[in-house]
This record gives sequence, structure tokens and C-alpha cells, in this order.
Amino acid sequence: MTESVIPGLFLTLEGIDGAGKSTHVGFVRDYLTARGINLVVTREPGGTPVGESLRSLLLDVQSQVSLDTETLLMFAARQAHLDAVIRPALARGDWVLSDRFTDATYAFQGGGRGVPFARIATLENWVQQGLQPDCTFLFDVPLATAQARMQGVRQLDRFEQEASDFHARVRDAYLRRAADEPQRFCLLDARQSIGALQALLAQELDQLLVRSGA
Amino acid sequence: MTESVIPGLFLTLEGIDGAGKSTHVGFVRDYLTARGINLVVTREPGGTPVGESLRSLLLDVQSQVSLDTETLLMFAARQAHLDAVIRPALARGDWVLSDRFTDATYAFQGGGRGVPFARIATLENWVQQGLQPDCTFLFDVPLATAQARMQGVRQLDRFEQEASDFHARVRDAYLRRAADEPQRFCLLDARQSIGALQALLAQELDQLLVRSGA
Repeated sequence: MTESVIPGLFLTLEGIDGAGKSTHVGFVRDYLTARGINLVVTREPGGTPVGESLRSLLLDVQSQVSLDTETLLMFAARQAHLDAVIRPALARGDWVLSDRFTDATYAFQGGGRGVPFARIATLENWVQQGLQPDCTFLFDVPLATAQARMQGVRQLDRFEQEASDFHARVRDAYLRRAADEPQRFCLLDARQSIGALQALLAQELDQLLVRSGA
Repeated sequence: MTESVIPGLFLTLEGIDGAGKSTHVGFVRDYLTARGINLVVTREPGGTPVGESLRSLLLDVQSQVSLDTETLLMFAARQAHLDAVIRPALARGDWVLSDRFTDATYAFQGGGRGVPFARIATLENWVQQGLQPDCTFLFDVPLATAQARMQGVRQLDRFEQEASDFHARVRDAYLRRAADEPQRFCLLDARQSIGALQALLAQELDQLLVRSGA
């Protein structure tokens, strides 16, 4: 990185399954590209060869590994993602949009499955060493809306209901994160139409463009 | 674990490549078995299906992952090893002998490759939550002895010399660990004959048997 390069901004998309966040990746990319920003779009888990291998490993042996091991593997994949993709992109002045990042670990492994937030924070500090997203768009919807989007409106069976309780805890954890860091989070009511959400995203992106000096 | 079970002791073997530590696994097992101890022999890296998968992953993609990622993967494998093998064995009253454990991470990734000890200690605390080996046998030999054992006495080429500097730093890190925790480490001068080393091991194992009340 030469001294004249202004580091890019790091944006993340978060939300429960069915919140619709991934729908907006293309809009954000087009909006920023039209304004001269080179945007690197990536996602977690994954985003690197080792990340993809670890994802396969977790799927293969999931029943055999403890929640603590799974959490460490998540952060190992994140470390690889930061080292190979995110930090180099930011250093050369690109912006980065990651579909999920560390807030998802707080929400799913933490809120959803019970890993204490303090234990997640220790690994977050170890891996990120102070790097945080400049802006996190949290697409929030009530559980019923997310479920209706994913599977229609029929009644849930017992296993789906357990999954529903899990997703309720995930959503609560996301909302707690957003409440704790209001300056970083942009909380979006994702029940709104795609058009209305794009208008809100554009407004937020305009502020980020001003802030970055781009 | 029922309340009447006395937890087993946790022993580790450490040393640079060529120090000869693995030669003594059979002796330790036979010695303890003859005295009524059920010994679980294991090793790192490896020891579990996920550990073996991670070891393959590290070998496959080693050139692509950063040292930080490698260190996290080591501790993920260690977490799996503790959860699936070490803690259950200790809880049912067995003793455990692991051929390498966390001291090897301090020695190889820390001393050898430069990961700060404080960063390793953070992951050690996260994974072990206070569990430490009851006794660590450190087989120490001068580099020249280890090299002679491994490859004869011909002169080293440049790459082997770099490897030699690396192993010198690994040895120094091991010795520093032993100096910092003299109550846990049993430092053995591994230039001695196998018979002399077995006599020292037997003496130490006798003390551990007394201490365990076995």
C-alpha cells in the first residue's frame, strides 16, 4: 500500500435467514461502482480456499465437533478471509462488502447456541486486532415474516418450531449488537419493499461516500 | 464421571525433532500399566477425526494460509482433542500421555516462527480453561545431536542450515518454558542412553503415582 492510498471502507450485511439481505448485494455494488468505488463482494463462511475447506469440514463432521471447536474453526476461516481478501482490498483503496461477518458469530453461535459473548469477543480481538466494519446493515424482520418468505405460511412441526426458537434467539442477539453499537449499525426494517429499502441504502451509502472522501 | 472416580493425570512428551521422545512412549505405557493405571496414548497434531482432517488441510494449503490462521487451526484441533479424548479419559480416571501438546505451539509457532507468546497464551486459556499437563517430560538435546540422529553427520546445505536456525529457536523456546514452570516440567538430558533415561522416567513416574494416590 503506497502512502497516497486512502483505505477503503468495510461494509457488512447481517440478518437472520429469510431477512432478504443477499437480495441487495447487486444494488450496493452497482450504486458504489457508478460512483467510482471498486467494491469487492465476499461472504462468510467461505471467501477463501481454506474457508471453503473448513466449511466442508464442518458440514462433514458437524456431529463430531463441539461448539467450541466449531467457533474456533469459524474464526480460523475468518482470519484467512481477513488476511487473503479483506485487508489487502482495503489497503489498496477498494471497498469490501461481506455477506455476514463476526456479528453472525455473536448471533448464531452466541445467541443461538449459547457460546458466551465474552468468549467470542476474545477471539474477535485476537483475529481482528481492532479492525471493525465501518458500517453493518442489519436486515431485521419478525420471525413470522422470515418463515413465510422461506417456506410459506403452513403451520410448523416440532422440529421447525425448535428451529424457530433458535432463530428468535439469533434475531435477539443481532438486535442487542445493534443496540450496543448504534454508530456502526444501520438497522433496516426489512418488511419494507425492495424499493423502499434501496432508497434507505442509497441514503446511507451517500453518507459513507462523504465520510470516506471518495 | 461418578463422584468416587479420582481424575487421572495428564502427561505430555515434548522436544525438538530428533530428541528421541517418541522412543519412550512404550516404556511409559508398560510401566504404568504394570502398576494398575489405564493409560490413553495420543498425539498432536491429530488424535481425533477432525484433528486428522485439519492436519491434512494444513499440509494441503499450507502455502496459502497465514501463520495466524495456522495457529488458530492448531488450537481448533486441540479443542477437539480435549473434548473428544483427553477430558473424557481423565474424567473416567484414566491417565493420558500426549506426544506433544500446547508447549509445542509455544516452541514451533512461537519461538520458531514468531507468533508472540502472549497471543498463544490467549488461545491456550480459551481452549484449556485452566487444564494443564500434570507433568511434561522435555527431552532436550543439542541441535547437533538431533541432526546427527536424523541425518548423519554430513555438512548442512543452506536450506538445512535455515532449518537448523529454526530448530535452535524451537529448542530455546522449550527451555524457556521449562525454566518458567519448573514444577510442571521434568527436563531430561536426552543425550543419555535409553536405559539411563528410562531410569529417570521411572523415578518421576513413581512420584506421580504417589501424588495421584493410585
